[in-house]
Amino acid sequence: MTTSADASGSFPDKGSASHTFVVGVDYGTLSGRAVVVRVHDGAELGSAVLPYEHGVMDRTLSSTGQSLPPDWALQVPSDYVDVLRTAVPQAVAAAGIRPEDVLGIGTDFTACTVLPTLADGTPLCELPEFADRPHAYVKLWKHHAAQPHADRINRLAQERGEGWLARYGGRISSEWEFAKALQVLEEDPEIYARMDHWVEAADWIVWRLCGAYVRDACATGYKAIYQQGRYPAREYLAALNPGFAGFAEEKVARPIGELGSRAGGLTAEAAAWTGLPEGIAVCVGNVDAHVTAPAAQAVEPGQMVAIMGTSTCHVMNYDRLSEVPGICGVVDGGIVAGLWGYEAGQTGVGDIFGWYVDNCVPAAYTAEADRRGQDIHEYLTELAASQPVGAHGLVALDWNNGNRSVLVDHELSGLVVGQTLATRPEDVYRALIEATAFGTRVIIEAYEKAGLPVTELVIAGGLTKNALLMQIYSDVTRLPLSVIGSSQGPAVGSAIHAAVAAGAYPDVHAAARAMGRVHRDVYTPDDERAGRYDALFAEYVTLHDYFGRALDHAGNDVMHRLRRIRREALR
Amino acid sequence: MTTSADASGSFPDKGSASHTFVVGVDYGTLSGRAVVVRVHDGAELGSAVLPYEHGVMDRTLSSTGQSLPPDWALQVPSDYVDVLRTAVPQAVAAAGIRPEDVLGIGTDFTACTVLPTLADGTPLCELPEFADRPHAYVKLWKHHAAQPHADRINRLAQERGEGWLARYGGRISSEWEFAKALQVLEEDPEIYARMDHWVEAADWIVWRLCGAYVRDACATGYKAIYQQGRYPAREYLAALNPGFAGFAEEKVARPIGELGSRAGGLTAEAAAWTGLPEGIAVCVGNVDAHVTAPAAQAVEPGQMVAIMGTSTCHVMNYDRLSEVPGICGVVDGGIVAGLWGYEAGQTGVGDIFGWYVDNCVPAAYTAEADRRGQDIHEYLTELAASQPVGAHGLVALDWNNGNRSVLVDHELSGLVVGQTLATRPEDVYRALIEATAFGTRVIIEAYEKAGLPVTELVIAGGLTKNALLMQIYSDVTRLPLSVIGSSQGPAVGSAIHAAVAAGAYPDVHAAARAMGRVHRDVYTPDDERAGRYDALFAEYVTLHDYFGRALDHAGNDVMHRLRRIRREALR
Repeated sequence: MTTSADASGSFPDKGSASHTFVVGVDYGTLSGRAVVVRVHDGAELGSAVLPYEHGVMDRTLSSTGQSLPPDWALQVPSDYVDVLRTAVPQAVAAAGIRPEDVLGIGTDFTACTVLPTLADGTPLCELPEFADRPHAYVKLWKHHAAQPHADRINRLAQERGEGWLARYGGRISSEWEFAKALQVLEEDPEIYARMDHWVEAADWIVWRLCGAYVRDACATGYKAIYQQGRYPAREYLAALNPGFAGFAEEKVARPIGELGSRAGGLTAEAAAWTGLPEGIAVCVGNVDAHVTAPAAQAVEPGQMVAIMGTSTCHVMNYDRLSEVPGICGVVDGGIVAGLWGYEAGQTGVGDIFGWYVDNCVPAAYTAEADRRGQDIHEYLTELAASQPVGAHGLVALDWNNGNRSVLVDHELSGLVVGQTLATRPEDVYRALIEATAFGTRVIIEAYEKAGLPVTELVIAGGLTKNALLMQIYSDVTRLPLSVIGSSQGPAVGSAIHAAVAAGAYPDVHAAARAMGRVHRDVYTPDDERAGRYDALFAEYVTLHDYFGRALDHAGNDVMHRLRRIRREALR
Repeated sequence: MTTSADASGSFPDKGSASHTFVVGVDYGTLSGRAVVVRVHDGAELGSAVLPYEHGVMDRTLSSTGQSLPPDWALQVPSDYVDVLRTAVPQAVAAAGIRPEDVLGIGTDFTACTVLPTLADGTPLCELPEFADRPHAYVKLWKHHAAQPHADRINRLAQERGEGWLARYGGRISSEWEFAKALQVLEEDPEIYARMDHWVEAADWIVWRLCGAYVRDACATGYKAIYQQGRYPAREYLAALNPGFAGFAEEKVARPIGELGSRAGGLTAEAAAWTGLPEGIAVCVGNVDAHVTAPAAQAVEPGQMVAIMGTSTCHVMNYDRLSEVPGICGVVDGGIVAGLWGYEAGQTGVGDIFGWYVDNCVPAAYTAEADRRGQDIHEYLTELAASQPVGAHGLVALDWNNGNRSVLVDHELSGLVVGQTLATRPEDVYRALIEATAFGTRVIIEAYEKAGLPVTELVIAGGLTKNALLMQIYSDVTRLPLSVIGSSQGPAVGSAIHAAVAAGAYPDVHAAARAMGRVHRDVYTPDDERAGRYDALFAEYVTLHDYFGRALDHAGNDVMHRLRRIRREALR
């Protein structure tokens, strides 16, 4: 049974659509989540989560126990398939629907998460002879060991005046496909030579589902330097390393699939894994942040969606092209077909709060939180909420995991100024929350300077449940905050895309209107607090430029030197 | 029975001196300690400690429970008398000596710790009508609420070219007598009017012991701006505030007692408190850091004594006068009569480590330390000790309690640069230790630039027991470290002074040779580690000048602005 447009243009057919469903699968950093969504209204009927068996390998390689160098982060691709085998059927069972009423499946992934494969898609790490080779595994988005390679990519592109560079804010990230692949070439040339494809995990999982390798427009544009129908030129790549000359043509280039389009039909093998009907629509892959925009009904120009979890991604559509310094990228059709999709991001947000409570909060606090039956985050938040703006006397830089926008520099690091002997844990906790809000304001101001004003901030992701944090973001940005109506935004977004791929809606805009959910203006800025935050934000900006733009601003490059000193000390 | 010089000039008479003793009493921040010392060889025979009943009042006033503003720190003077009543007889009992064999008593105190009294020495806080008035109490050394007053004192002295300013490194501290008194005048003029004397606690306790109010040369020189026989001029004080014109003449000026001289004989009342013989020598008062030098046999030019506890004081004698920018002060006879005594200091050292473990170390660490039966400092030190220099990737500024030398600015605050999601508690702990070592190196370099090279670093105080910390100080300063042979340096130093006051030795040099103890070259610098620390120290200096000398170095005055923002927020 399929649902399609009727002659009047009303999608979907209400009579039958109330009994049709789509499945969205969101591949996060630590787990995969499947959700079953009703096509006609977006109701979420059931979901299931599977943590990855091997998690994130950032200290040792699971297969051998060998140590990994600093800044590495790997994953095991079979963990992704396990999500299809386990979480998808569990979600369908939880939803209480009949599998045969599922019209399609859509997926989204962290990015740039990328792996080397053979021509048939077999990951190199699954070949017995490569099981002990770290470079044969998936490089997770937060693998940051390719920074020297990214630096060379950027330097050379600047020297040669490569036109694509401005589309990425003037700097390519070490997280992306070219930097990570150059690291493979130079550190393990045998792996590089053996790989037929350098595949985004977002596209690899679609390949597993439908048997076709289609590159999605989103990841390919943002992470693989694909602009105006071209990758970086052969001569440029040869100048980086002669062995890299053919990288784009030989290892990357593939047909590009528009977001929301059908990549293929579910294979018999994948139907067996998932329990879904063979042949149903498998949607082109997508990136977790970008796919969230339709789930929050935020696909119109000027609506910025901040997906706030361990890190934050900011995605926004506009009807015009502007090259914004320091953003992650702008891609034609990168969020929805027909609009320019802009992406920016903060590489550590919830991760910083998590690091803080794990490493910097004393026993008296964790014991008191236990006594109250509160999570330590809740307890610190409650303590921090009662203080006036500025009372802690602190300002922090939110770079414990580097900076993705607008500095695009993963070698930056954290900073806290103003601690005294009277500084309490809740003070630093609040200062860290504020620092991440300041980081978001820097991004918003970069867009505004480039002529792309942000008119609405829509928040999605796990941090939406922290009301203090939300209010701080509203006060710091002086914007009203809308909040997505689902706690499973990316998975619902994938389901929306699946509905389009299955033909239930004519495009993502229409599907988002029917299936997305948002609560408008849940938080609004308080003028007095906003004024106090202006003063703290000015301090943040001064420190931001001094430590983050040392060369341009007569600043201090100490963060980079400390990284070098650390590497030398550990050698 | 007394011991005095015999005709041959050999001090003391060995026959009788082995049966004579002196008592030293050290008044610290939280407790008073008495120690009984044998005159002829400095053997420590017994000691006792009494914590102050009222501790440090930095949040509320004990008498009423009323809140105190930020940066206040008060004490109750009767707590000091309780030490005489309790700890002194306990120490004598513990020593197993006969009280009648005690020749004298010497005392030392934190400074500048200062209180308002009537003409007879009665503290104003002991008058019932003033018991609820914070300004009637002792202002402890770390009362920092007079910073605005200190700023005015410094600005005006600079404008008028006051000659004494250079003797204090170019800046007077908010901790000292004039700033604290100006705060009393302007915030509680009734208290100011009513006080007959503004008395160093160091001299007040001697007054209690012998009935005579003698100002000691040490505190008067370092803390009361007494130079070349004069206090700041009446016209200068009037320009600060007309009501302050007579402050020096009326409330401060008194006869000055040389260090090691006799202030008077023990009164009957004090003999009853202490159980010591009436009439024995009571030595002129002294400051805890300065009095430690003879206990460590470090009273010759170029020997720097660093007394490292909650804060660090650096005292050093020289045979010549040089005005060293940023030091606390240089005073003729300020450490021993006949030499120029130089003082510098770091206002937070052990206090920072204490704050860190109380506020920033997670339960998993404190539980593991418990399991091992270790103090949390020991456990963190053990973890930190195994890492190579620079491996943590951090650099910190040790200003959580402000900066006493060479910036003399209590509104500065702490800073940590370089934290990542991989940063562990032991990493920050080590970075904080290193920051304090860098702070000491800044002081040593300031002396060297002024033509006063430091030839030996002698460490005293509670932190000597941390071997990692000691080695880091040796590596960072590239100096061999000697360690005092007593864990009760100030009390032993006071006892040495008492022996001189009682006539058992001709001067402090001779008494120090006989009674002091030091272990030479316990730690020596490692050249490779020292080289790596040079690189980190360069980073420290850059940050030090950027944040601490904002006006002179095109830096960033953010720490002061954050203090202002904090005060406004809490108003």
